[in-house]
Amino acid sequence: MPTLTNTRTVRIRWGDCDPAGIIFYPRYLEIFDNAVAALFERALGITKHKMFEAYEFDGWPLVRTHLRFIKPTRYGDDVEVQTGIKFGRSSFDIEHRLSLKGELCVECEEKRVWVMRGADGAMKSHPIPEAVLKKFGA
Amino acid sequence: MPTLTNTRTVRIRWGDCDPAGIIFYPRYLEIFDNAVAALFERALGITKHKMFEAYEFDGWPLVRTHLRFIKPTRYGDDVEVQTGIKFGRSSFDIEHRLSLKGELCVECEEKRVWVMRGADGAMKSHPIPEAVLKKFGA
Amino acid sequence: MPTLTNTRTVRIRWGDCDPAGIIFYPRYLEIFDNAVAALFERALGITKHKMFEAYEFDGWPLVRTHLRFIKPTRYGDDVEVQTGIKFGRSSFDIEHRLSLKGELCVECEEKRVWVMRGADGAMKSHPIPEAVLKKFGA
Amino acid sequence: MPTLTNTRTVRIRWGDCDPAGIIFYPRYLEIFDNAVAALFERALGITKHKMFEAYEFDGWPLVRTHLRFIKPTRYGDDVEVQTGIKFGRSSFDIEHRLSLKGELCVECEEKRVWVMRGADGAMKSHPIPEAVLKKFGA
Repeated sequence: MPTLTNTRTVRIRWGDCDPAGIIFYPRYLEIFDNAVAALFERALGITKHKMFEAYEFDGWPLVRTHLRFIKPTRYGDDVEVQTGIKFGRSSFDIEHRLSLKGELCVECEEKRVWVMRGADGAMKSHPIPEAVLKKFGA
Repeated sequence: MPTLTNTRTVRIRWGDCDPAGIIFYPRYLEIFDNAVAALFERALGITKHKMFEAYEFDGWPLVRTHLRFIKPTRYGDDVEVQTGIKFGRSSFDIEHRLSLKGELCVECEEKRVWVMRGADGAMKSHPIPEAVLKKFGA
Repeated sequence: MPTLTNTRTVRIRWGDCDPAGIIFYPRYLEIFDNAVAALFERALGITKHKMFEAYEFDGWPLVRTHLRFIKPTRYGDDVEVQTGIKFGRSSFDIEHRLSLKGELCVECEEKRVWVMRGADGAMKSHPIPEAVLKKFGA
Repeated sequence: MPTLTNTRTVRIRWGDCDPAGIIFYPRYLEIFDNAVAALFERALGITKHKMFEAYEFDGWPLVRTHLRFIKPTRYGDDVEVQTGIKFGRSSFDIEHRLSLKGELCVECEEKRVWVMRGADGAMKSHPIPEAVLKKFGA
């Protein structure tokens, strides 16, 4: 089962933060969504935009997510986001660990489904293409 | 030239505001974008979503906008957004006036183009349908 | 243990949705954060903004949340958000059920802590004021 | 009159884009707000967060802005944002030019005021500190 981990640094911005001076937590989900795209971009060598053309792929909708908030972060903070993936047949599990100066701030688990649009326009789960799995295994 | 004005009340929310405790100004543009959709919904009796099916219509991209910020607003504020429209042939001008307890806080002018997707997939300006203009004139 | 449920209708807006034409899921967390504020506003008769003045209160940071996404929603959808609360001593549990035309689309559970800012500026958990609990029990 | 230009690359993300597949334009204002902070960070060598401590500074609220949208951008696009500044006594003018592969997509002009919080808690315009101007002149 191919796995991969990607780590990136993200700046918490002024507009991400609320009147309490800390990040407005829905912004974490935007950060994590970007981190999934960045993980695939690193493994496949193309952006999510190009994935729609290159693979049997129409998205990876979230089925469920669980978040634990341990320490708040603030604008100006450069946080580290470590993202790991574990593939199933037509779904995958993601784990994000967001930390600041080595201290864990947020943990997030996600289950996402690999989907393709059927002839009727509806999204249906679809086996993750071998070509994708190979790139992660490399 | 048909014109119409719509007025609605919008709550400024916690997550719209920044560490200074006032609204993060890009949120005003979301409020104004919603106000345009609300104006058309009032005139046409259908949501923007239904407009894509009901009319020769694929969007109203913004060409330019000008904003003046006079007084800040805060979460918990119920602001009044007054939106007026003036139609051209394949474009329209919008004016928003956002006020709190009768005091003007933000002024916004927009020019938007009525577009349709051509056979090649590209968006092109298109005359605003007569059926739309009639609803505004009523 | 006082409990209360609040139900409200929320419009999914154009700018909430992504290139797949469905809601970008971090927007749900904004909707749910607003729903918590609306629940307290209904029970206490004042906005969250006023709560900072009226009660021993400096926020209700999220400790953990769990979300299940069952069906997607689209711009133009008027979804119903039903929010229930169960109080502990200095924390509370929230359950949101977001549905469209009677069909459940998203389930969300949250644990939040009632906090006050200490003399050193740091946020600390604090018993939920009796005056607040009474309003919910009424 | 000190001036400075800063150029940075910004990725347009999936969640920045709308059902038309192009960027939801209020996201441009977030990009431009970040670009102002990045410009000062480059000149002063500290983040906006640190500026609140290091200088007589409590923010740079926007007084007015004017935007022209020339070409749309899409998720996966790496756009270049060139930001220039021209200082007045207690205000400054900003010009952003956002381009993709050398083609101009958005132009934005801003006027912002340098403010400090008075004893009464209200924000008042304040001369831009000499120490700040010097760093830009260097």
